[in-house]
Amino acid sequence: MAIFKKPRVYLDYAAATPLSTEVLKGMLPYLTGNFGNASAIHTEGVIARKAVEEARGRVATTLQVRPEFVTFVSGGTESNNLAIIGAVEQLFSQGRSFADMEVVTTEIEHPSVLRTVRSLQARGVGVKYVPVDKEGFVDLNALRALLSEKTVLVSMAYANSEIGTVQKLHAIKKVLTEAEKRFGTTITFHVDGAQAPLWLPCQLANTYADLLSLDMGKCNGPKGVGMLVRSRRAIISSTLFGGGQESGFRPGTENTAGIVGASIALAVAQKDFLNRATRVARVRNSGIEYILKEIPQVVLNGVTGDGRLANNINISIPGIDTEFATIVLDKHGYAVSTKSACAGAGGGESAVVRALSNDPARSRSTLRISLSPETTFQNLKDLTKVLKAHIEKMSKY
Amino acid sequence: MAIFKKPRVYLDYAAATPLSTEVLKGMLPYLTGNFGNASAIHTEGVIARKAVEEARGRVATTLQVRPEFVTFVSGGTESNNLAIIGAVEQLFSQGRSFADMEVVTTEIEHPSVLRTVRSLQARGVGVKYVPVDKEGFVDLNALRALLSEKTVLVSMAYANSEIGTVQKLHAIKKVLTEAEKRFGTTITFHVDGAQAPLWLPCQLANTYADLLSLDMGKCNGPKGVGMLVRSRRAIISSTLFGGGQESGFRPGTENTAGIVGASIALAVAQKDFLNRATRVARVRNSGIEYILKEIPQVVLNGVTGDGRLANNINISIPGIDTEFATIVLDKHGYAVSTKSACAGAGGGESAVVRALSNDPARSRSTLRISLSPETTFQNLKDLTKVLKAHIEKMSKY
Repeated sequence: MAIFKKPRVYLDYAAATPLSTEVLKGMLPYLTGNFGNASAIHTEGVIARKAVEEARGRVATTLQVRPEFVTFVSGGTESNNLAIIGAVEQLFSQGRSFADMEVVTTEIEHPSVLRTVRSLQARGVGVKYVPVDKEGFVDLNALRALLSEKTVLVSMAYANSEIGTVQKLHAIKKVLTEAEKRFGTTITFHVDGAQAPLWLPCQLANTYADLLSLDMGKCNGPKGVGMLVRSRRAIISSTLFGGGQESGFRPGTENTAGIVGASIALAVAQKDFLNRATRVARVRNSGIEYILKEIPQVVLNGVTGDGRLANNINISIPGIDTEFATIVLDKHGYAVSTKSACAGAGGGESAVVRALSNDPARSRSTLRISLSPETTFQNLKDLTKVLKAHIEKMSKY
Repeated sequence: MAIFKKPRVYLDYAAATPLSTEVLKGMLPYLTGNFGNASAIHTEGVIARKAVEEARGRVATTLQVRPEFVTFVSGGTESNNLAIIGAVEQLFSQGRSFADMEVVTTEIEHPSVLRTVRSLQARGVGVKYVPVDKEGFVDLNALRALLSEKTVLVSMAYANSEIGTVQKLHAIKKVLTEAEKRFGTTITFHVDGAQAPLWLPCQLANTYADLLSLDMGKCNGPKGVGMLVRSRRAIISSTLFGGGQESGFRPGTENTAGIVGASIALAVAQKDFLNRATRVARVRNSGIEYILKEIPQVVLNGVTGDGRLANNINISIPGIDTEFATIVLDKHGYAVSTKSACAGAGGGESAVVRALSNDPARSRSTLRISLSPETTFQNLKDLTKVLKAHIEKMSKY
């Protein structure tokens, strides 16, 4: 046993990312001196208001939308809830009955989408799930067939948080637009972009979304901050009630420091995303190849070729308790996860892998290795060795 | 004109408070190195989980409840929403119809209570407003008469955010308990304690609440963090849908730094509250006496004797545009407000003062001066001079 401590190799970037120094630096003035309430009219309030609106402007520039279409919320979960419930509630407030509305999503969405649509179902809204293929891509023909005059909202993740499948949003939007023409209706397109900012273009036009949800804790920004970005045609109701903050879409005293940090994190993430993604995808591809070669039992979940989030590796090791493997890897210095932290990071089945494989042995033995921009191929080789040794040891029982 | 800049005198402590050095120090490790997702099972996750649960334990010790009764949320507004909607939704999920439920509150509550009960009213829940007397105290006889077999929730602020009236929670609870016995029902008592931690005892038993809402931005903690504390008998449904965080009451990745900061802020606020309140109330009393003596037009809003929040001064100056006065005071270095920032800090009427005076001249000319622990009598004397000069100048027009 070495007496020095091995440095940690953090491979759970899909669950949490470090706050960047640049972001913290931007936040600190609002955690120390400038503490005013942004809704107050005195100097302290004006300073806070200016910071919040500058941050909104920075986000607007990054995402190429008008500032008034950016609403700051407490995270990705709240953003998904506000988008989905807010869109349906808005129509309800206009006199449309819940029974006359349908929401379309997939079975591989994040719990904050799936459980939110289920809450609407309990209120009478119809919910339909589009099948996905074995790689996790939405079946466009099935989508076309599922849409109806009642469809008011379609919700899909930009990139799946477990298997990293990047949906072909342009193709999905095309199907939605066709249906809108066919039925003479409006179908609001909600995109859960939580995993996107570090690796994919997030300008609103690139996502084809009417409502784009982002979480700052996933792109080197502060935890407890997210945003909902709207297109010109998206109309939602607030789901929280109180003061008129955030143009009435999200009451509560503005979290100035968090909002400023969010705007910087998103700008930095997007500025460099293509280089970052290209570089990390190369490491990731070598890693996948190496793992599959070294450990024959391993099955890759998600996309084989293009269309996988740059930093995502998701494998199954049928017959292996991957929760235990996660703990063993952790002891050796590697932080990985079995599935989405929000889906319960520990044991149990991956609903995502179950949906696309219908293979319990596979869905119960998932391992998600989500790379950071600093991850090296050597890190993945070393991890593979530890994993391989563990699997060999387990096979003896 | 002096060439040196006068130091600011911040007198809007009811709207926002500086983050204390102690709190920031406690938060920083989770804004720098320890960034793990508290739901992850690896070391980084375990460190975050430990921090969150230690924070919950610290809050539990401060408020004398069991840790599992503390739910961290994104602020006071969300806490009030979760308490009120969550309690009603819980009963609804048990099969009780909205039409069979009544919520009782007052017209002087914070917008995050008033607009939340109105959202329930739109869904069919009955809402009744108990009258308050001229000082803002709930009329106990009227409360007794308003309660019925249908009453499921009563929501009152511990201390009013504009006029600082501290409700006699014990007496209110007594009326509720009598009604519970009379009707054989359970009436959940929600207390909005946003203004309380620095000045009033917040141990749950002291508030007589089943649901206590707190906001950390109001007690030297971080903005964007609050909590909802439950008694043993309070049952609520979550109003956000997603992962199983916060025992299912509040999904979303835990804001570790914010939660740690909240626990420290609350502990520090409560540790010393009685000394702090006694000291500040003395300054405040001298200030009120001085203002009333110096500016005869001034009318005090709220309580004359005991029962006013230690740091609250709220006056009306009939005939004076107090929004303009606020700006003039700001130019002289004094940060004050006209009313609650969440109610729109600028012009317009104070709904609180309107409800208890029914005097538009009074409700349109409010000025809230909320002291910090550092405010001196000299500060208030100096402010009075500026205000007096301004009023005399205005009177000439």
